[in-house]
Amino acid sequence: MNYPNGIEKKYYNLVTYGNRGMSLEEDLNITNEYYRENNIAIIYKKPTPITIHKVDYPSRKEAVIKEAHFKIPSTTDYNGIYKGKYIDFEAKETNQKTSFPLSNIHQHQIEHLKKITEHGGIGFLIVRFNAYGETYLLENKDFFSFLEKENRKSIPYSFFQKYGKLISIGLRPRLDYLKLIEVNL
Amino acid sequence: MNYPNGIEKKYYNLVTYGNRGMSLEEDLNITNEYYRENNIAIIYKKPTPITIHKVDYPSRKEAVIKEAHFKIPSTTDYNGIYKGKYIDFEAKETNQKTSFPLSNIHQHQIEHLKKITEHGGIGFLIVRFNAYGETYLLENKDFFSFLEKENRKSIPYSFFQKYGKLISIGLRPRLDYLKLIEVNL
Repeated sequence: MNYPNGIEKKYYNLVTYGNRGMSLEEDLNITNEYYRENNIAIIYKKPTPITIHKVDYPSRKEAVIKEAHFKIPSTTDYNGIYKGKYIDFEAKETNQKTSFPLSNIHQHQIEHLKKITEHGGIGFLIVRFNAYGETYLLENKDFFSFLEKENRKSIPYSFFQKYGKLISIGLRPRLDYLKLIEVNL
Repeated sequence: MNYPNGIEKKYYNLVTYGNRGMSLEEDLNITNEYYRENNIAIIYKKPTPITIHKVDYPSRKEAVIKEAHFKIPSTTDYNGIYKGKYIDFEAKETNQKTSFPLSNIHQHQIEHLKKITEHGGIGFLIVRFNAYGETYLLENKDFFSFLEKENRKSIPYSFFQKYGKLISIGLRPRLDYLKLIEVNL
């Protein structure tokens, strides 16, 4: 299937895997809920951006959107606060075995992540290789050093093995990615 | 008109005033754009949260949402980073002259703002009194001291005059609310 800009893919995952608790998105939602309930961090996934064209009001109390389109996001999907620090990241899954295609991330999102570092926030990618069941956290500094040095359309799996941090999978929290973030207090 | 939970109101404002650059939301969007372009802060409005029920695929490249509902937001509408600090706020307009009804803000959002302070972020409300053309920034500390002391369903206009900070309206930036935020570096 052809998923332009990852937008339909996202929605596809939402309806197909959402309730089975298996997608990266669902794992992160459960993890962020755990972080919030245990007062570790306040991190949320942003709603999917859409453009609304038509709304019906079948009753005074209810509005039903009858026509809308998915929009290309200008920022990353996740942000929040951890130990007083601003946290910002994008999360993607890939079925590729040898590399993570950069087409999965919009240019806007890459520029956004860069600005986060410039403004003193903590930015990173979370990338899951479905073929290996492995989920890596790639800090901005390593992500941008790759982009500056290499002129490639994808990041090799071996780069994640070398520079990424493998996120351990557990029950609670499901994906303890914050454990891998160092915050100087 | 009866706007339950402010949801239809928000959408109504979006279509009615959006293009005239007159609503508080539009003023804040322009201001945040200015802050981003001038590298002052990276702050965005979150997309409106919706639940999608039906999607059509008229072509491989395009998805059209054919049925969706507005959801009650669990967080505030705006967040981002300023001088290395996590920023989080909710913005509302009221046509009332003597007070700002607390029914404009969901309980979830109030709890969310409280947590932001606990985690070392900067949280506040931006409230516009349309009758006076005045827009106030009310810091979390003053907002929560009101909630703790008073058992009222609305915050008097006089409270904003006394404890809020009046945001000056200009051309660029349109609503310079960050000028009123003190960040200890």
